[in-house]
Amino acid sequence: MRTSGGGTIGVAMAKKKVAFQGARGAFSEEASRFFLGDAVEYHPRERFEEVFRALAVGKVDYAVIPIENTLAGSVHENYDHLLNYALPIVAEARVRIVHNLIARPGTKLPAIRRAISHPVALGQCLRFFRKHKRIRSETYYDTAGSVKTVMENTDESVAAIASAAAADYYGAQILVRSIEDDRQNYTRFFLLRRQAAKIRQKKGQILKTSIVFSTPNKPGALFRCMSAFALRDVNLTKIESRPLKGRPWEYLFYLDFLGSPEEPNCRNAMSHLGEMVEILAVLGCYPQAA
Amino acid sequence: MRTSGGGTIGVAMAKKKVAFQGARGAFSEEASRFFLGDAVEYHPRERFEEVFRALAVGKVDYAVIPIENTLAGSVHENYDHLLNYALPIVAEARVRIVHNLIARPGTKLPAIRRAISHPVALGQCLRFFRKHKRIRSETYYDTAGSVKTVMENTDESVAAIASAAAADYYGAQILVRSIEDDRQNYTRFFLLRRQAAKIRQKKGQILKTSIVFSTPNKPGALFRCMSAFALRDVNLTKIESRPLKGRPWEYLFYLDFLGSPEEPNCRNAMSHLGEMVEILAVLGCYPQAA
Repeated sequence: MRTSGGGTIGVAMAKKKVAFQGARGAFSEEASRFFLGDAVEYHPRERFEEVFRALAVGKVDYAVIPIENTLAGSVHENYDHLLNYALPIVAEARVRIVHNLIARPGTKLPAIRRAISHPVALGQCLRFFRKHKRIRSETYYDTAGSVKTVMENTDESVAAIASAAAADYYGAQILVRSIEDDRQNYTRFFLLRRQAAKIRQKKGQILKTSIVFSTPNKPGALFRCMSAFALRDVNLTKIESRPLKGRPWEYLFYLDFLGSPEEPNCRNAMSHLGEMVEILAVLGCYPQAA
Repeated sequence: MRTSGGGTIGVAMAKKKVAFQGARGAFSEEASRFFLGDAVEYHPRERFEEVFRALAVGKVDYAVIPIENTLAGSVHENYDHLLNYALPIVAEARVRIVHNLIARPGTKLPAIRRAISHPVALGQCLRFFRKHKRIRSETYYDTAGSVKTVMENTDESVAAIASAAAADYYGAQILVRSIEDDRQNYTRFFLLRRQAAKIRQKKGQILKTSIVFSTPNKPGALFRCMSAFALRDVNLTKIESRPLKGRPWEYLFYLDFLGSPEEPNCRNAMSHLGEMVEILAVLGCYPQAA
């Protein structure tokens, strides 16, 4: 919408910009809607690192990234970017993942010979492929992008596997709904900003903090690091290890705990941990998702 | 080689069969050579799960799988297969990864416009792509397989990124040697069999054991599990978490420790751990790689 005389009103009305990986209609867009509602401008990017860079250089106001899926596990690449870009996590969300077989309008299921999608999505629909042996799975860089590709082509033997939102966005047709093997399929997303804001904790809300640290290369090191939390009854909800680059067979640990660095027992645990490790950084503090 | 009168001699001379993921010339083939020498029959497979299945059903005698890379991290999918197939780990090896730009013989570097390879390999040669901006990276399912594809095509603007062994195997030419960003690039491989054999520990050799366990869903659970080892001075070398399927936000932990389940302190640690967890399995005990 064009406005004349813009000025303050124009600025106030400017939509916030959000970057995410994948094409329009990606699960990350769904997460973005949960975090920010509909009144945003979407900036889809092909790769995760481009999402981080868009936020780092100020091209967007927010970034939405997946961090773990209850079936596929962590999105390890994003742990590396969280450390390298130091863009604070300001919120988390859990989104239920439903995969659908999607084709051009008017296509019938028996005509489908190939189904394209992201390898993680394909790997979560193995029962469907076992049941429909004539349909061959083929990897594609993105779930929603596979719907876009199906719609751009005229080959009616190709279908995509993606969200209902992607089918809707590209005007495609859902041939088979909810073809995922396991309904306990959730992805946890992070909302990132350039700077952390002061958290206004609502009543009954529990805060969660994500940190990263390196352990010294000696026996019992990780155990001692974890004792800093255990001895103060700080509850850990997730631990993830990543290789420490340049030091083969040494690791960085990414850890989530309940509480904020401003609470005394958490602050003391962090300070105790700091005595033992070389690298220690807070990646963000945010309300725990319901 | 055909032999007449087969019998015992024929059996004794039959080559052992080994399955690995990727095309001939893959880094896994290099690891296989380290484990088993040259007198083996290679059974390349497209996907990791097919490698496990080939061993499980007796089509091969051995399987070689990568489990972690010092830059890219763990091959998480293989942790899942180790649990599901219960095929024991009998040896580990560490292989130095060198990536090369490989093309059809006679091709010159300025002609190259696209480089195809496995996404992990592409991600480890970012400096090369920044320096040669006219070369676009394109993902392919396999490193060695990308060399095969380059040789099967006549398009001289396409190169592959793979091992020197792959270039050699397909009669291709190395245009640029060692284009990986970081020389500290090693992959750890496991050798699997259908049944574990009694380990003959050589003098000075340290044994390593890989286990998997689930933690109870309560505060401090992982810390208590690790204390079973720490309190007995058992040294942990690796810990990796994977989602526990069907139980969102709960995890399985894969842990390597130095020692064998037959040593008293390790046996006691395992028994102590067993008091606390629902799932506990030994994935293998093998000599630590040098």
